Formats: sequence, structure tokens, C-alpha cells
Amino acid sequence: MIDIFHDMSSLECFFAPKSVAVIGASSTIGKIGNVIFQNFAMGQFKGKAYPVNPRLDEIIGIKCYASVKDIPEEIDLAVIAIPAKFVPQVMQECGEKGVKCVIVVSAGFAEIGGEGIILEQEIIHLAKKFHMRLLGPNCIGVFDSNTHVDTIFLPIVRMSRPNSGPIAIVSQSGAFMSSLLDWTAAEGLGLSKAISIGNKADVDESDLVEYLANDPLTKVITAYLESIENGNTFIRVAKKVTKQKPIVLMKAGRTKGGASAAASHTGALAGTDEVIDAVIRQLGILRVENSEQMLDLANALAFQPYAKGDRILIVTNGGGAGVMSVDKLEQLGLKVPLLSEDVQHQMMQHYPPYCVARNPVDLTGDTDAERYRIALELGLKSDEIDAALVILLFQTPSLEIEAVEVVQNAQRFKKPIVVACVGGELAAVFSRKLEKFDIPVYPIPERAAFAMWGLVQYGKWLNHVD
Amino acid sequence: MIDIFHDMSSLECFFAPKSVAVIGASSTIGKIGNVIFQNFAMGQFKGKAYPVNPRLDEIIGIKCYASVKDIPEEIDLAVIAIPAKFVPQVMQECGEKGVKCVIVVSAGFAEIGGEGIILEQEIIHLAKKFHMRLLGPNCIGVFDSNTHVDTIFLPIVRMSRPNSGPIAIVSQSGAFMSSLLDWTAAEGLGLSKAISIGNKADVDESDLVEYLANDPLTKVITAYLESIENGNTFIRVAKKVTKQKPIVLMKAGRTKGGASAAASHTGALAGTDEVIDAVIRQLGILRVENSEQMLDLANALAFQPYAKGDRILIVTNGGGAGVMSVDKLEQLGLKVPLLSEDVQHQMMQHYPPYCVARNPVDLTGDTDAERYRIALELGLKSDEIDAALVILLFQTPSLEIEAVEVVQNAQRFKKPIVVACVGGELAAVFSRKLEKFDIPVYPIPERAAFAMWGLVQYGKWLNHVD
Repeated sequence: MIDIFHDMSSLECFFAPKSVAVIGASSTIGKIGNVIFQNFAMGQFKGKAYPVNPRLDEIIGIKCYASVKDIPEEIDLAVIAIPAKFVPQVMQECGEKGVKCVIVVSAGFAEIGGEGIILEQEIIHLAKKFHMRLLGPNCIGVFDSNTHVDTIFLPIVRMSRPNSGPIAIVSQSGAFMSSLLDWTAAEGLGLSKAISIGNKADVDESDLVEYLANDPLTKVITAYLESIENGNTFIRVAKKVTKQKPIVLMKAGRTKGGASAAASHTGALAGTDEVIDAVIRQLGILRVENSEQMLDLANALAFQPYAKGDRILIVTNGGGAGVMSVDKLEQLGLKVPLLSEDVQHQMMQHYPPYCVARNPVDLTGDTDAERYRIALELGLKSDEIDAALVILLFQTPSLEIEAVEVVQNAQRFKKPIVVACVGGELAAVFSRKLEKFDIPVYPIPERAAFAMWGLVQYGKWLNHVD
Repeated sequence: MIDIFHDMSSLECFFAPKSVAVIGASSTIGKIGNVIFQNFAMGQFKGKAYPVNPRLDEIIGIKCYASVKDIPEEIDLAVIAIPAKFVPQVMQECGEKGVKCVIVVSAGFAEIGGEGIILEQEIIHLAKKFHMRLLGPNCIGVFDSNTHVDTIFLPIVRMSRPNSGPIAIVSQSGAFMSSLLDWTAAEGLGLSKAISIGNKADVDESDLVEYLANDPLTKVITAYLESIENGNTFIRVAKKVTKQKPIVLMKAGRTKGGASAAASHTGALAGTDEVIDAVIRQLGILRVENSEQMLDLANALAFQPYAKGDRILIVTNGGGAGVMSVDKLEQLGLKVPLLSEDVQHQMMQHYPPYCVARNPVDLTGDTDAERYRIALELGLKSDEIDAALVILLFQTPSLEIEAVEVVQNAQRFKKPIVVACVGGELAAVFSRKLEKFDIPVYPIPERAAFAMWGLVQYGKWLNHVD
């Protein structure tokens, strides 16, 4: 991170450039420089895209330039995908041209040690000299679902692109970020932006977290990090940002071996995990252990209100699933309070005697959607309950699609709701319907409980810092 | 459990009856007694099925009997789905008829307390008196993928049935078992048998675990339990069975609230979790925290050889995913040893210099299947490595379907292999191909690592007890 350019607006050209030069653009299908250029030229990107390659006259009918300096218009963003040793020369030209932001996709820098370190120093120097912001090197760059900036060199047949949505991803692993994009696309989970930070020669996690905090299209910031070099900056930024938006962090290198593997992957020194963990907790960052947890939490935080307390109502049509939910919620420090006799009594007036209204509210296997409606209304409107975890086992005979509307209507109490739908095809169909109403759905009760933990934990943090 | 009938052959009629009476059979589509009877009469069940209902002459063209005693042939299995208060009378008739096994689907027994407890005592008495084995009450009974015994009252449109396969499920929650069947059907994970034990008035987890240990079609026994009443019997059985087959146990009621919810669900007292956990560990049972872990472990144990040691090779095309795997494996107590210089050298002879052959072996984003072949062969044939965790991020440009064959061929080293494929549609397609070769595939590295833990842990147990 270059402190003298610590100005958020300087990152704008990574996400909303008016003009882009793809340096190393290629006409060979599948080549990195071909995919990136096609993403801009053939996709929905609204700005202008210029291919740069001294050996070509044109690519897909678009005039190709020998140097970025030959392009007759201003260039906001240059994407560089050429062998590492040629990158400094091209960066020099970008600087002379007045390019504002540069993404260096190429590998072969600090991560390989030796001369790679020197090369990286050179491009840092050039970025500084010409007041350019630099993302990478050794990264897959930027995916923006709104402006359609897409520097990812993986064709759509390999990696689907997710729809627009409120979750941002910052990743220190390019390959893993591509897997996450492909995954969220398949799951229908929308992203605002995804940024691969690679070697972090200039732009790092702190810059991006700060930028995303001010991005109106981002509601939750998720990050996969293997190292945090500028700890003080990160702490300063995170302290400010967690008051605005939740940060969900997957910090790798938890074990000794993991940390050493992380070091050999990125060439960076990963901090002691105990220290990092303590710091993270104090900053109100939600730390997760894997990418499943990261997306599970992001999904809840993006679409549900934060909880004002930790007292969870469980409504289920399977006793076992209720037990599993209690186990997990309590393990996470949340409460599943016994409902007051008054509320229990009100519920039981509508239920057959074999239902249990204590909490978990067990509506049993012959329930219809109406019993859910009663449990959710009476539970959520009471001041005994802060949030609801709803289990819908759609295998049972009388539970119809109306249950989706019931849960949707229960959102009017402005208390968070998460759902667990265990099963196969039918569960998947009904889950998608629930998600259309912004209700996060999980395939097992324990994952729903973990998501609820995020809503409670972040709600607590906001209350705490207010 | 009735000790005087503690004879495994006595359970046979639950799974392979020659003749079945469905007491409470109905002609109304969707009714419990209709679904169960249709499962036998219209499905692939090879034996004879007789409907019993005094108010009907026939159901779907099949003669209906007023009492089980009127059926002119011997009855191996009676499935009872009528209101609880009528069950003792019908049990009496079953006894007089000489029925061998009875499944009581009906609820309204010990789980509701009061008179339900007395009713349950009555049917236990009748089972004992007439030497009948009793499954339930308050259960969904049996699903057998080979004999097609299927007493589950949920129609196929609600709950898909899984294919035949090597995993057995014993569940104290009927609704949750139905969700698991639906889920495994969608995932393509085959089951041998699934048994819902309900109130365990007679047949309990110990009986079934012992029975399944001798079932040649079952390779892994999984169980969801909320309570273990006959601890001594369970310990005796498990001690014997874990030497033959792995038992994967999800024991609910881990927290105080969970235990109390379990008690109100089943009417049974759940044991202290600390005691249970210690006992489980000493018995070589693999304990899991949720159903995702249960199926993940079962999938690996059913299809892969058990590990002879705990030294894991990681082969990846994404550095980040490698780091995540190390983190999780080490957290679980497994080792990711640095490869010897010799093996590293042999690998690097075939790799470009930016690959890392230390372990994780990072083949980087431009790898093809061939690099995987080299890493797996050199790693698995060495005596430095006991098993391999392979990460395949199919988003990267040069990794083709041949990678599936490469992993398949690596199975000849008779060391366990698990795979993580992170992503969307393409990953799902390639995952299915891998699964056709009996290679378990997981959607994130950490779940693959956990499955590997099961293979190592159970391998250790077998070595330990030999």
C-alpha cells in the first residue's frame, strides 16, 4: 500500500473505468489475453476497450495497438497480462500515458523469490512514480457485477459469473476466488464486486475494505486472507468499517502447517494466529473457518436485519431437527428460552395436544403452514424472542408451498429469520422460493444456526459500539 | 430391547419378509395407510402384501381383510398405522396370528406421557407374550433399498427414495430420517437400509447396529441418536461391531438445552454428554456434530480403503485451497509432511519452476491432468505418504476431464483418496464422474479434510484393536 496515494477515489478506476487497455490481448481463443479482452469487448462493459499487442493488427475486428501510448484516447485502467519480465517496460509506458489504475495479472514476481522480488520492487516504484494504483501482481483482478469490469481470464464455460447482489469478496487466492464466483453463480447468490489481491504490491485488503465500506452496492464484505502485512492500517480501517458494514473474514494459516503453506503460496509472513484472532474479535469482525461458513454468514447478513438480542425461537416439524438446532445455537452461545406460559398457551389453543410449544416449537410431522404462521406470529411479536430459526422438512405430507408465504409474512416483525430445509429436489425448489423473498435457507439446521450466530453477533457489535 | 429374544435372526422379517400385512390400509390417496400399502403393493417389493381394514372390501383391486387373523397365509411382518388406542387389540390379533415382526407407525405412546406410557407398556407386554419383535411405536419404520420393504408413509413425490448402496442409517428421528433419504437420493448416495427406531419400545440402536454388522450389504453404519438407554448393551455391541465396520454417530443433546429438547422429543433421558463422548471415543465410534459430517464421513468410509497412517499428501491447483486443507487436517491432528528432497526432485523434473512440490503440491493455475498424475503417482507410491487429498478447481483453463481418470488410476496404490471440487455446474458434473469411480468428492477442502480424518481415525482403530 502506497500511503501517499491513500485516497479512496483513486481505486474508482478499477471498478468503473471509462476506458480499458488490455495489454497482452490475444486473438487465440482460450489464451489469457484473449479471454480478458473478450470480457470487455464482447460483454456488457459500457466503456471502451482497447487491445494492445505489437504483433497483431486487430482482434475480433477491433484495431490493436503496439503500445498503450499509441491509443488516441485517455486510459483509466490497464490490464497487463504478459510475461513478468516485460511488465516494468509496459508499466513505464502506462505511466507516461497517464493511466490511473493498473492490474497486473502476470505471475513471476515476489511469490517466486529471487529476481521476482526485484521485478516487483520495480513495478511498485513505477506505480509510485507515475501516481498509478496497482492491483496484483499475480492476481486475477476484478469482477464487478454492475459495471461489468471482468478481468478474470477464465472463460464463462469454465467459470460462471454470479448475478449482481450485495456481497463483496476480497481474496488473496485467485484460483479460490474463481471457484467462489462459480459457486455463487450456481447458488444464485449475488455479488457486488470480487477482487483478487495477489501479491498486494500496492492495493491491499485494507484499501479494499475501506473502499467497499463506501460502496453503496455492497452490504457485506467477505475476505479470504492468508496474511495481513500492515496490521496497524488494517486495525484502523476495520475499526471504522465494522461500524458501517459487517466484515466476514476467513483468515487462513490457523495451524503451523497452514501458516507455512500460506507463506510458500504468497511469499508473505502470516501472523501468529492467536494474536490475529484476538485482534479480529476486538474489531467486531466475524471470523469463519471455511468458505461454506463465509458464504452462509454473508447470505444472512446481506438479507436479514441484525438481531437485537440473542433469544432464538425455533419452529420445526421434526423434533430431531429442533434438537440439532438447540445444540448448535447453545454451543455458539445463543439462547433458546422456554416460552412463557402465556405464549405457550396461546399457541396450544390452535394446536393438537401432541404439539410442543415450549421452544423448540415442535409442530410435528402432520403440520400445515398455518401452524407455522401461528408460531411465528406469536413468537416474534412477543418481547421474549429476538429472532427465529425455522425448520421446514418438506417431506412431511401436509406442508405445502404456502409455508413460504408464511415465513415471508413473518418478516414484517423486523426480526431476523433463517430457514433450514433438509432434503432433495423438492427442498431445493422450495428453498429457491424462500430465497426470492430474501430469506436465507440452509441445508442443515446447524448451518442455519451458525448464520443466526452471525446476525446476533453483529447486532451485538453495533449495539456495543453505538 | 427384550433380552430373551436377543437373536439377530429375529430381526430378519423387518427387512426381508415374505408377506406383509398393512393394518390401517386406506384407499384415500395421501393417507398414511394408503401410502404404506401402495409402497408394498405397487412398488418393487417381491413378497405378498395384504391390506387390513374392517371398513373396506378392497384397495386398488386387492382384497382387504377385516383382521390380520383373516388372512389365509402366514404373515411375517405387520405394519400398524391406526390410532394408538386401538393398537393393543391389533397387536393381540397379530400375536394370535403368529406374526413375527411388528412395526408400529402410530404416535401417541410414551412420548406423550400419561396414558401413552401405559399403552406402550401394553404393547411391549404383547410383543413379549407372543414372541414378536416390535419396531417403534412413533416411527416411520424401515426402508430397504434391496428388498424394497418401505414403510415410510411419505409418497415419492414428497420424498425420493435413494438407490441401493453401502450406507445404513439408524435414526431416532423419523422426520429427519425422511429428510436424509430425500437428500441422499438427490446426491446419488446409495443406502442399504434406513431404520427409524421411534420410542424404541423393543428394537433399539444396539439391536440394529448388531444386525447391520452382519448385513453383507452394509459397509458403514450411521446413526442419529438422542438417547442411549441401555448403555451396557450398547457398549458391548459397539465394541464388537467397530472391529468389523465403522460406526458414525451423531449423538444429539450435546448442550444442556439440546439434551432437554431431546428429552421432550422422545420422552427419554439423554446421558451426560461428557460421559457419552468419552465412551464413544474408547469404542472406536466416529462421532460427528451434524448430518452433513455424518454423510461426508460415511461416503468416504463406504468407498475408500482405510488409511494405514496419518501422513496426507495434498495436491492442488490453487494455493489457497491447499492452505485451507493444511489448516483443517492439522486441526484434526493429521500430518501434512514435507516431501523428501528425492520425491520433490522427481516431481519438479516434470514441472515448471513456479510449481511447488513440498506438500501441499501446488501445480498452479495452468496445470493439466498430467501434472496431477505425476504428483499422485510419486506421492502415493512413496512410503512417506499414507493418503491423498486432491483439490481440483475445474475453473482453471487447462484442467480437463482427464483429471478424473488420473485420480481413478491413482486408486491402484490402495491408499485412500478424497477430492475437493469447489465451484458450480462444471464442478458438479465432474464431481459426479469422480463419484462413479467410487471417489468421494466434497464441495470445500475442509469437508474433504474431515472425511480424510474419518479414514485415518478408523484405520488407526483397526490397527489398534488387531
